[in-house]
Amino acid sequence: MAKVLSGKDVALHNKRDDCWIIIHGKAYDVTDFLDDHPGGSKIILKYAGKDATAEYEPIHPPNTIDANLPSEKHLGPVDLDTVEKVEIQITDKEKERQERFSARPLLSEILNLHDFESIAKQVMPEKAWAYYSSAADDEITNRENHAAYHRVWFRPRILRDVTEVDWSTTILGHKTSMPIYISATALGKLGHPDGELNLTRAAAKHDVIQMIPTLASCSFDEIIDAAQPGQVQFFQLYVNKDRNITKRIVQHAEQRGVKGLFITVDAPQLGRREKDMRMKFEADDPKIVTENEKVDRSQGAARAISSFIDPGLSWKDMKWFKSITKMPLILKGVQCWEDALMAYDAGLQGVVLSNHGGRQLDFSRSGLEVLVEVVDNLKAKRGLKFPNEKFQLFVDGGVRRATDVLKAIALGANAVGVGRPFIYAFSTYGAEGVDKALQILHDEFAMNMRLLGAPTIKDIVPEMVDAHNIHSHVVAVPGDRLYDSNYESLQYAKLQEVKAKM
Amino acid sequence: MAKVLSGKDVALHNKRDDCWIIIHGKAYDVTDFLDDHPGGSKIILKYAGKDATAEYEPIHPPNTIDANLPSEKHLGPVDLDTVEKVEIQITDKEKERQERFSARPLLSEILNLHDFESIAKQVMPEKAWAYYSSAADDEITNRENHAAYHRVWFRPRILRDVTEVDWSTTILGHKTSMPIYISATALGKLGHPDGELNLTRAAAKHDVIQMIPTLASCSFDEIIDAAQPGQVQFFQLYVNKDRNITKRIVQHAEQRGVKGLFITVDAPQLGRREKDMRMKFEADDPKIVTENEKVDRSQGAARAISSFIDPGLSWKDMKWFKSITKMPLILKGVQCWEDALMAYDAGLQGVVLSNHGGRQLDFSRSGLEVLVEVVDNLKAKRGLKFPNEKFQLFVDGGVRRATDVLKAIALGANAVGVGRPFIYAFSTYGAEGVDKALQILHDEFAMNMRLLGAPTIKDIVPEMVDAHNIHSHVVAVPGDRLYDSNYESLQYAKLQEVKAKM
Amino acid sequence: MAKVLSGKDVALHNKRDDCWIIIHGKAYDVTDFLDDHPGGSKIILKYAGKDATAEYEPIHPPNTIDANLPSEKHLGPVDLDTVEKVEIQITDKEKERQERFSARPLLSEILNLHDFESIAKQVMPEKAWAYYSSAADDEITNRENHAAYHRVWFRPRILRDVTEVDWSTTILGHKTSMPIYISATALGKLGHPDGELNLTRAAAKHDVIQMIPTLASCSFDEIIDAAQPGQVQFFQLYVNKDRNITKRIVQHAEQRGVKGLFITVDAPQLGRREKDMRMKFEADDPKIVTENEKVDRSQGAARAISSFIDPGLSWKDMKWFKSITKMPLILKGVQCWEDALMAYDAGLQGVVLSNHGGRQLDFSRSGLEVLVEVVDNLKAKRGLKFPNEKFQLFVDGGVRRATDVLKAIALGANAVGVGRPFIYAFSTYGAEGVDKALQILHDEFAMNMRLLGAPTIKDIVPEMVDAHNIHSHVVAVPGDRLYDSNYESLQYAKLQEVKAKM
Amino acid sequence: MAKVLSGKDVALHNKRDDCWIIIHGKAYDVTDFLDDHPGGSKIILKYAGKDATAEYEPIHPPNTIDANLPSEKHLGPVDLDTVEKVEIQITDKEKERQERFSARPLLSEILNLHDFESIAKQVMPEKAWAYYSSAADDEITNRENHAAYHRVWFRPRILRDVTEVDWSTTILGHKTSMPIYISATALGKLGHPDGELNLTRAAAKHDVIQMIPTLASCSFDEIIDAAQPGQVQFFQLYVNKDRNITKRIVQHAEQRGVKGLFITVDAPQLGRREKDMRMKFEADDPKIVTENEKVDRSQGAARAISSFIDPGLSWKDMKWFKSITKMPLILKGVQCWEDALMAYDAGLQGVVLSNHGGRQLDFSRSGLEVLVEVVDNLKAKRGLKFPNEKFQLFVDGGVRRATDVLKAIALGANAVGVGRPFIYAFSTYGAEGVDKALQILHDEFAMNMRLLGAPTIKDIVPEMVDAHNIHSHVVAVPGDRLYDSNYESLQYAKLQEVKAKM
Repeated sequence: MAKVLSGKDVALHNKRDDCWIIIHGKAYDVTDFLDDHPGGSKIILKYAGKDATAEYEPIHPPNTIDANLPSEKHLGPVDLDTVEKVEIQITDKEKERQERFSARPLLSEILNLHDFESIAKQVMPEKAWAYYSSAADDEITNRENHAAYHRVWFRPRILRDVTEVDWSTTILGHKTSMPIYISATALGKLGHPDGELNLTRAAAKHDVIQMIPTLASCSFDEIIDAAQPGQVQFFQLYVNKDRNITKRIVQHAEQRGVKGLFITVDAPQLGRREKDMRMKFEADDPKIVTENEKVDRSQGAARAISSFIDPGLSWKDMKWFKSITKMPLILKGVQCWEDALMAYDAGLQGVVLSNHGGRQLDFSRSGLEVLVEVVDNLKAKRGLKFPNEKFQLFVDGGVRRATDVLKAIALGANAVGVGRPFIYAFSTYGAEGVDKALQILHDEFAMNMRLLGAPTIKDIVPEMVDAHNIHSHVVAVPGDRLYDSNYESLQYAKLQEVKAKM
Repeated sequence: MAKVLSGKDVALHNKRDDCWIIIHGKAYDVTDFLDDHPGGSKIILKYAGKDATAEYEPIHPPNTIDANLPSEKHLGPVDLDTVEKVEIQITDKEKERQERFSARPLLSEILNLHDFESIAKQVMPEKAWAYYSSAADDEITNRENHAAYHRVWFRPRILRDVTEVDWSTTILGHKTSMPIYISATALGKLGHPDGELNLTRAAAKHDVIQMIPTLASCSFDEIIDAAQPGQVQFFQLYVNKDRNITKRIVQHAEQRGVKGLFITVDAPQLGRREKDMRMKFEADDPKIVTENEKVDRSQGAARAISSFIDPGLSWKDMKWFKSITKMPLILKGVQCWEDALMAYDAGLQGVVLSNHGGRQLDFSRSGLEVLVEVVDNLKAKRGLKFPNEKFQLFVDGGVRRATDVLKAIALGANAVGVGRPFIYAFSTYGAEGVDKALQILHDEFAMNMRLLGAPTIKDIVPEMVDAHNIHSHVVAVPGDRLYDSNYESLQYAKLQEVKAKM
Repeated sequence: MAKVLSGKDVALHNKRDDCWIIIHGKAYDVTDFLDDHPGGSKIILKYAGKDATAEYEPIHPPNTIDANLPSEKHLGPVDLDTVEKVEIQITDKEKERQERFSARPLLSEILNLHDFESIAKQVMPEKAWAYYSSAADDEITNRENHAAYHRVWFRPRILRDVTEVDWSTTILGHKTSMPIYISATALGKLGHPDGELNLTRAAAKHDVIQMIPTLASCSFDEIIDAAQPGQVQFFQLYVNKDRNITKRIVQHAEQRGVKGLFITVDAPQLGRREKDMRMKFEADDPKIVTENEKVDRSQGAARAISSFIDPGLSWKDMKWFKSITKMPLILKGVQCWEDALMAYDAGLQGVVLSNHGGRQLDFSRSGLEVLVEVVDNLKAKRGLKFPNEKFQLFVDGGVRRATDVLKAIALGANAVGVGRPFIYAFSTYGAEGVDKALQILHDEFAMNMRLLGAPTIKDIVPEMVDAHNIHSHVVAVPGDRLYDSNYESLQYAKLQEVKAKM
Repeated sequence: MAKVLSGKDVALHNKRDDCWIIIHGKAYDVTDFLDDHPGGSKIILKYAGKDATAEYEPIHPPNTIDANLPSEKHLGPVDLDTVEKVEIQITDKEKERQERFSARPLLSEILNLHDFESIAKQVMPEKAWAYYSSAADDEITNRENHAAYHRVWFRPRILRDVTEVDWSTTILGHKTSMPIYISATALGKLGHPDGELNLTRAAAKHDVIQMIPTLASCSFDEIIDAAQPGQVQFFQLYVNKDRNITKRIVQHAEQRGVKGLFITVDAPQLGRREKDMRMKFEADDPKIVTENEKVDRSQGAARAISSFIDPGLSWKDMKWFKSITKMPLILKGVQCWEDALMAYDAGLQGVVLSNHGGRQLDFSRSGLEVLVEVVDNLKAKRGLKFPNEKFQLFVDGGVRRATDVLKAIALGANAVGVGRPFIYAFSTYGAEGVDKALQILHDEFAMNMRLLGAPTIKDIVPEMVDAHNIHSHVVAVPGDRLYDSNYESLQYAKLQEVKAKM
């Protein structure tokens, strides 16, 4: 076992060609790793010979450095009392951000999920915002996810007794107070020091189900431990190239009481999220960067944390999964009816029709659109009716209103996953923010169920929506700018004072 | 009977934990009601121990406080001579608004209904504007109501003698000078001290029919009394949880000569109108609010006045309605052909295809769009032809031009309801504004009937419109912002002086 | 015969209740006419007792005052030598306009028809621009006329010998150098002192056909006299309530060699053109206006000059027209196939599919769209092929490019009418402007015929265009403003100096 | 042979009516040519009697002056030592441009092809940008080329082993590392002194194929000579009116090892590119121009260099081509299935479905859209399957992402041509820029092949895309500006400081 190092020992190694850092009380030699760091070398060099924990903590999932750095570079424990405190310099820009943070509106002023996002954009650290909000390529699919809901319109019914309305339902047999689950999203500590625990706490309060992400900032067990007795949790799985690791993780999850395994299948490689990549360059100093231009640093946070994911995962693995766990198996990231059918035929318990929040393949269609073809084809080819207890359909991406959810339910989904809005809620107000977000959704469900004339979720039927435009991907003919600029708009009658000034 | 209180008696109760106010010469103990007040406690506390009538009057329908406050809190009459006058402080913002009001354009400069709205936005008190203009959720349906008319185009005929054109017609057998009625809208005094009477007066002058709202600022009898002999009025009904109250109201209306009962069926609960809700927070002082953050004040004016409405109203009640009145019964708020068919089969006299001006369920379709499916299905299933004297179809929402109305007529409507434009007209110019609005519509009817080649309303036939796009709910593919920003528009030839300056 | 008046005689009558003016050397008593003047009384009062010719001339068609003022108000000739010159005061705004006019770009810099419009908007008197550019109601149809061309796309052919290309054709049997005629537009002198003569001169130079308007600023005979020997001209007719006047006009036209009579059928009443109407109020002084508010002055130039038009014109009149002239008869303003068929069956020689440049019924469809249904139905019902020598189809409205024209030709039109672009051309550069506009069109025809692979007009066939979207009248779903504003666009890599400044 | 002239000899001829210039060490008498110069006379007069090489070089393809000026105006060699150096005056505007150029971002900051274009717009000489970026008429087709890709969406597959992905393929039997070739674009030296050689070098490095343009700034042989051994190059041909010249060029190309002849068929005449034309006027001094207004200078660089192209080229010539070369013959610029079928029946080896980057006939459809109808019709009429080795389909225009390319491949294309993006890459960073652009594309291919579930190009099948909207050419109904401006957007909850300031 390595001897305990002193702060001074470490402080000697403070150069590019000899660089040690301290993380969580242990020292690491990162000299050879500098150029491979997906976040660039500059950010590490800032902490050469020093304690980098505060900077490291929110961005890296637990054990990242231990798992990625060769063990011979692990230099062992450091006596933290002997380590000089690193004063984190607060830039003017950061000071302004903190002021904006203190000026957040009262939680009671938040009226809808858009509000959280608007505030998050103003008060979150830029890097966190870039990581959460970014999506693949030109972010077309990211926005299409929301736009798709706007192509589906309601056909509400009247004169039904809606004195009592009940929007609770079940997901994989488990009760939930609304047809929504909290979808898995990575790196929660970027937004709030309690990370994913904010979601666990609010989920408990509202009886909704949280899906725990593989790439959480908090450890899996922390999140499980934070749950209330009887609180239902699912687990989202990225499959490791080393199946033993995966087996261990899955069986641990089952043992800890997880009620469903959502295997991500839309991410054999993580997408290029340029907003996230761009952020790195913005943050770096171009002059320093110049000297080392050869290194390709254009990766962003997303790829940095995902190199273990197996691009070789295939249908053959499904049998193996069934052999190692009894948890229901759901594929997350199905994007056409053919694969939904294969999942059904493979004996799985459901699919999430999802494009990973637009963060993977740009020009993937929205889950809502895919839902329509899945329902049609599984009915035609296997006689299935939806919603279906045996083979459940979920969609995620782009949801902001209870009306969005109700549209998906009407079209055959069992429930809908919501991700970013809850991130923005806890990044701005912690667990109370998520609580408020869920309250708002309850409010919207109550009202909209009444206005639809549907006392229960079962009363939300396909005839209540008109989705015939769902497959339209229309782009307007490019504008005739010369003609259009020549056109002079009509004017309103003007106030007399206005005229007087003219 | 309570003794007459003096101003001094009341003035003693001027604290949060002991709060009396005076309304219309009577004192009320509102201490326990403060936190339940949908408009927030702050506005009441401003008048603690004082006369609140001027503030109360325009926002509350008649008898609101008497009906909502437990009778033991009614403290009886106050001798108003002993009450100190409350000086209403005028803010700078309000002063500017009043200046804008005095600078309204001449009425003769108003060329179309858009003008009234443009001026109203500038000269109305913010709260009133927020209440009238707000709609549900993201206000998609609110705007769709107008947009739907833009998907219907004309196929006019030529060389027909249109020397004389006549756009008068009948509604439920009653003559009207144009195929428009004034639809029911709440709280008219927010916009003008004479409230709904402005509409009654202008309607009389132009022989159009006014629909009296349940939630009028003026009392029902005031509005009836303001009518000219022979002037036709309808009544819009919100059905009370207590059917005896409803029975009394309906039979009173019939007795006073009302010619049609429009039962609102799209509002078992009033919608979330966030513009209206937001206004409350804007108006309040955040610091004071902080101390009492627990209270959910996010309700807005709309919900405040509507808690009596029965969400249990159902088809079974229709029989009862027929038993208590001989007035024609029309359902206001039908949104699909199935419910229109049920209304017909239930022996009612008609339906208003409406989504409540976009104020209830967002993503409801426009009345115009629903009209097309209602006409098709009632023809196919019951052999009905429209317009039809026995079962009349009305639409409302989004109308700004006579051409809008003519499109609805061509598609089978008997008449069209217009609401907000008349509110904006009287909020800016009183009854004369409504008079002018109706004049403008007459002008537009005259011209457009001629240009359509239709001498009378009966000559407006389905073949005169092309409505094949009515069901299109298209959303453009999200823009490629990088590509689009790189594109540099063509330029025009520039004036030489302009070039010289460059 | 009236005695010759002196300037002093007239100058005495310079008050609202006693108002004479001089026009073209004759005095008129306009006291009783003041309130009826469609242009408002103020503009007349400015010249009370004075010579108003300079102001009157460009706005009024020849003989307007003689024809409209009762003969007893015609006071006879004035000795102009005794009349004081009226100094027209030039406002600062007008001075700026004149400066802009002198700074017009060189004609050689004009590259397309859009350029003329752009310059016209900057250098024309506001009233003239308002009159020419305005259209009906919300000006939807006005812009749709151009937009419709953008829904038709080309299917060009390759490897055809296009060394020589020839875009000349015939209209009603008369040779024209391009498949375009100059359509009739009113009040040319508003834009240029030579008015319609600019068109006559340029038309002569390019062998294109001019359609003379009933409401020309120049007299019919002036325009005829300005033509070169053999130059072909058509005549556009507004039919007078007094058929004798119409008969006289038509027979005079035929006698003077006019080769085709285009009877306007889309204007039984002239449309409400609010830009034009608004202009009047802008120009007037609100304080003076106030005193006389009762008078409805909301008419604009258009209606002022059109009260003689007969709204009783009908199909029965067509027989009468055939009895009074041998000129080919074409209906201008047909807007559906049913009326085109009736025109054919009535033995007329053609129709102009037109909505009067969007100036009459708003939401009329474009001529191009109507063309498609006319061609389809006259083929199906009468076996006609288009283009057709016996029954010719024309379209007008929204044309700015030779490609627009070629699309109409491919779809079956014989030729296309162009109006406003030529007005803007002469309003900015006189006859040379029109000459240049025609040159540009020749250039565009040469290039585009080659690129289409069509050596002659006959080679422009239906298969060369894809018009399957022509009937689409799509309106995008109203935007989700909250969602969309939250979306933050991707950024480009920034210049280093830019970054440095950030 | 002419005697060697001295600088002084030439300097004497420095007037409009006696004007000599020196180019590449030879003197020319351009007096009579001044008014015919497509670039205007002014730019020549600036160098009257002087050495114009520096200005001439980048804009003119090799031998332009020798080929265009009658041989009697070739005055022979000049002793350059005796010629005074022309100091090129650098304007402030140019200085600013050069500063921006030095501030280009690091190449490692470039994340996508859009970035190059964004930088090019800022740092290129205005004329070069105008020439490259301009397109025909209103540039509708230019933008449609990109927009068309946005109407095609993916249907990706999951759980396929994508550990190894390979996006290499063959074009006309030749290996390429990606399904992209560098398309021919003219006048490369406008953007960078090495012109097309930048492309040759980067192509070599990445094993992609370059198509050499007829109108290259570098000579054909220079480009061939710059290639690595075994590097594959194609040749784009404009057919000369003099077929002997064409024969000589083609046979020379074949002899030098060119592997495919792409005959341009969409440019019997070069399009009107108004941005390019406008640039000329912007650059000139209006005062000088005035004196010589008659000359039509509205031509732009494009037409200047293209007068030799034969508009008489026809299908008959194809046989002749087959007789003079064994190279595969491909038609570049086919725009409908009928012509693709004729090319197939004529025994050619393929077609490029292209509209010349939107630079020829505006409202031509995109290559991607035409691809769909070509595949459908050649399957139906000749039983062909695509991609097809014997008859290959290419598309170009509007490509910015690997996803664009993958869509075209899925729909049946063998490969896709990319032009402007590579121009922008070398105009900003030389050959390294093109290298980087290709690296980015490799990155995008790797990721997107994985996300599509396609290990090789052959696995990209039609079912992977939804292209049912490809033929939609939708234009939204013109907006109701009055209604829309009256609509007031919803607001977010505001930060308290923001509220405080209000």
